[in-house]
This record gives sequence, C-alpha cells and structure tokens, in this order.
Amino acid sequence: MTQINRAAIVGGSHGNELTGVYLVKKFQQYPNLVNRSTFETLVLLGNPKAIEKGRRYIDKDLNRCFTHQGLQNSLLSSYEDIRAKEIQQLLHPRNQPFVDVIIDLHSTTANMGLSLLLSNMHPLLLQLAAHLSSINPLVKVYFHQQLRGSGFLRSMCELGFVIEVGAVPQGVLDAELFRQTEQLVYAVLDYFERHNQGKISQKNSTLTLYQYTGVIDYPRNERGEIEAMIHPQLQFRDYEPLNPGEPLFLTFEGKDVFYDGVSTVYPIFINEAAYYEKGIAMHLTQKQLIHDY
Amino acid sequence: MTQINRAAIVGGSHGNELTGVYLVKKFQQYPNLVNRSTFETLVLLGNPKAIEKGRRYIDKDLNRCFTHQGLQNSLLSSYEDIRAKEIQQLLHPRNQPFVDVIIDLHSTTANMGLSLLLSNMHPLLLQLAAHLSSINPLVKVYFHQQLRGSGFLRSMCELGFVIEVGAVPQGVLDAELFRQTEQLVYAVLDYFERHNQGKISQKNSTLTLYQYTGVIDYPRNERGEIEAMIHPQLQFRDYEPLNPGEPLFLTFEGKDVFYDGVSTVYPIFINEAAYYEKGIAMHLTQKQLIHDY
Repeated sequence: MTQINRAAIVGGSHGNELTGVYLVKKFQQYPNLVNRSTFETLVLLGNPKAIEKGRRYIDKDLNRCFTHQGLQNSLLSSYEDIRAKEIQQLLHPRNQPFVDVIIDLHSTTANMGLSLLLSNMHPLLLQLAAHLSSINPLVKVYFHQQLRGSGFLRSMCELGFVIEVGAVPQGVLDAELFRQTEQLVYAVLDYFERHNQGKISQKNSTLTLYQYTGVIDYPRNERGEIEAMIHPQLQFRDYEPLNPGEPLFLTFEGKDVFYDGVSTVYPIFINEAAYYEKGIAMHLTQKQLIHDY
Repeated sequence: MTQINRAAIVGGSHGNELTGVYLVKKFQQYPNLVNRSTFETLVLLGNPKAIEKGRRYIDKDLNRCFTHQGLQNSLLSSYEDIRAKEIQQLLHPRNQPFVDVIIDLHSTTANMGLSLLLSNMHPLLLQLAAHLSSINPLVKVYFHQQLRGSGFLRSMCELGFVIEVGAVPQGVLDAELFRQTEQLVYAVLDYFERHNQGKISQKNSTLTLYQYTGVIDYPRNERGEIEAMIHPQLQFRDYEPLNPGEPLFLTFEGKDVFYDGVSTVYPIFINEAAYYEKGIAMHLTQKQLIHDY
C-alpha cells in the first residue's frame, strides 16, 4: 500500500487565480487546518512575484516550466524557470524523498465547478476521485495524461493533481467557490489520512471520467486575430454534451459556426481567459464510465 | 440646440476589457455601422500596447491620465501618459473643435448589465439615458460627477460617457454581452442622429439615476492585505438595495461582516477585479428619480 508521508498544497502558480492564493495564505496562518496525524503538509505559494503583480505570470507560464530539460538547465534565466527549480527543491529537499502528493490549486473563467485534473491513472487517485465525486455532485474528474517532466507541476509526482474551480474571473475572489474549494481540500486530506490508517473499507467501483481528446482554437484571420466568440448556446456548458451540427462559435459579424465533428464530445475549459493566447477555445473530452480500477 | 458634428468611440482603454476592443475592431472594419448622415464617427483603440499584452495597462491606468496637469506636462514618460496625449490630439485635431461626444467602452467583473456612467448632468445626456433605459431594462444609469481634466477620458467633453458592461471576466469575450453592447452603441448613435435632425419629439420625463455617494474598501490587515471577500449574499447584486445590518463581507475565517451604514444604499462595481488594487470593494450609490431635466 502506498503510504503518504508528505503532501504539498500549492496555490497561486498563476498569480491572478486568487482562490488558491488566499486558501494557501489561510493554511499558512492556520496550519492545523491542513495538518493530519499520519502525514506532513507543506503549503506554498507558487508564483509570489506574479501574485504581487496580479498577473498570471511574469515572463512565462510557470505551470509549463516543470520539464526535465528546463529543471536541469542552469542557464535559463526567466523568473518562472528559476522559480520552478526553487519549487522542485522545496518539494524534494536533500536527504528526503519527493513529496508523495501535490495538490495544485487553480481557478478558471470556464464553468468547471470543482474539477479534479488527473495526469495519470494511479489507482489511489482514481479511488480518491470516485470518493470526492460521490460526496459532492459539483466534483468532476478530467483525465489528461501528462508524463513526469512534461512541464506541469502536477506531473512531478504520481499523486499530483489539480483542483480547478470556476467560473470565476481572474483577479476575483468568489466567496462561495472559496468555501467549496476549501472543503474539497479538507476532504482530500481526510481521505489520505483514512487511507494511511487503513480505514478505507468500502471502495467505489465506478467513476465518471472526462478524458482529453484534443483542443479547438478560435477561428482566426491571417494575422492570427480571432474572428469569433464562444457561441452563447455553448457558454458556461462545460461537461455537457456537444453534438455534431450544434453551434460552437458566433463570428463578430453574427454568423453561427457549427461543430463539424462526427461524434458527441464534452467540452471543458470553454472560454478560459488564459487560453486565448495559447490558441485554445476549449478542450474536448469523451465521457467514460470506468470500473474496477 | 447642441449639434453633434463628431463623435468618438473608444474601446480598449483597458487592454483586458475585450468587449470594447473587439467592437472597435469591428467598427474599424465596417465603418458604415457607426457612420450616420449628420455626423462623423471616429473609432479608436485606447491602449494598443496593453491590448497586445492582454493587461489592463502597461505602466498605469490610462483612464486616470486625462488630467489637466498630466496632459500639459511634457516630462511624463510612462506609456499611458504619452498615450493620453496622443488620444487628446486625435480627439482634438488642429483647426478643429474637440469631438462633441465620447463613447468610452468598458467592461467589468461586476454584474452591472449595461450601465451608462455619466460625469455631468448635461440635459442631452440625461435625455439619451432616459431614452436608452426606456427601450432596454438592462440599461442602468450611474452618475458620478467628474470635472473636465479629472483624469477620466469621459470627462474630456460635455457629452462624454462610459458604457460599462458586465459581468464578464477580464480577458474574456461574452458573445451575448458583445451583441447587447453593440446594439446599445447603435441606439446611442441613432439617438444623436435623430437629435441632429430635430426628430426627438417625445421626451422622457423621468429617469432613474444611481448617484455616487462613496466607496467601501475590503477589510485589510496592518500589511494592507485583504481579510475578507464580498459576501455571497451580496455578490452579483449590483443596483439592488443594501440595508443596514445586511451582510457585506465574509472573512477568510468564515465570519460575516455587516453593513453598518444608517440608510439603504445601492452598491455597484461589486467585486470588480481591477479595483482590488485601488482599495475599492464596491461603489455606493443612492437611487434617485429625477424629473423635468
């Protein structure tokens, strides 16, 4: 059985995602809230300089900097490349193993409720996800495989994952979402505590998983400028089915653009502010029911 | 009678308020949409460099740079101080009078629907506001006196005002709000056209105005960090009455903070992202019915 000895909670990897920033500040002020008897919890702010500026990042997206090459390249001089190395050292101090768990707190302008973003199919992560979604219907589980060293903080350890909450604007605190996220963090920690104590008796046997299949960009002109917006009929409908022929975008001239795929998909990250510059209007997923993991 | 000869539509004075940015780009591509037979319409992007970066501003808030001192001080070197002078010249070319109308397009994370922000009580502005709010119940009218040279772009001419739309996150296009804002701009231009043609026969005699009375900041600790969030019961309730004793904030520890004023107020700009750094959790207004203006 995997024993959890140390967990890390990271908030503010993106400096304008305030839910995680202020939850981490609260946990730093009241460590008892996140300490558990069978494991240590390390709490840290991901990108202090970006938090101070109220921006996603200073030079580049910190949550794409945890690559093998980047972490080993001492020549990289951007703020986030340097900060990624610092975080790696905090998570993996000399003479200690790497933390066992990373809980990376993010928020999104998409209507994703309380989403768990998993990068691998570790049985304990799936059990945790099944448990959390069984106790709270707002919890959704998104699977997008990311190998260790792929650049994402959560990919740095097997039991790394993101809690992605929304819809909330960048630079804004939503009290209700703050409270729900806080409760979800406690539920995660309590689950690991009971796991360590051998008290997880009844396991959930089915889990609904939204599996990544690709991304869609906005229609763009030859200069790369967007020519359309998320269609009003699709806006805020993350995790709902999108069928071939249904509206996807509305051009600035008022013309509908329809989804021309061949099968039903479940879009998420619909209209995430930070993804305009990444060329992503939404992620597409397939809905799957998985058993006996 | 005031004749309108030239109007200016400005979008993207704040680079992450995309509704105005993309409306202006559309109007630049299709000038016929905003041209009218009796007046010229100048269309321009306020802060191109901030738009490119997807940020509110580069060095400082452009919409506080239109001060008498700033515009006359050739030593100021911030990007926005320089850009304010450029905009002034575009609005006031040599050998021509200043534009007669400024329509400054903004968006907010607060739930302000389609708000008109007026800085003075010019009878034509009040007539326009009464007309617009009579044809669309989403239109609300906010009055906050700003003298010419106070720093705000809209204060640069008597018939200057802001169209402030929300709730929409920074860096996000909401197609429905885009369409509503576009229709509102056309209704404004059509009104001035009919005004110039002497075709405004029936005048509205009453207008509901929300008059600025002050601002409230978030509770903060001695280091200036916020200690509370907008209360869930107040979130999104812009323009609704807030009575003494009703909840205003929720602290990170979960304690309610109540409004301790002596009379009912109507908060707006509730939880506007850009105002955290300005020390503003909301603006307070009084609701007034005005007649015979």
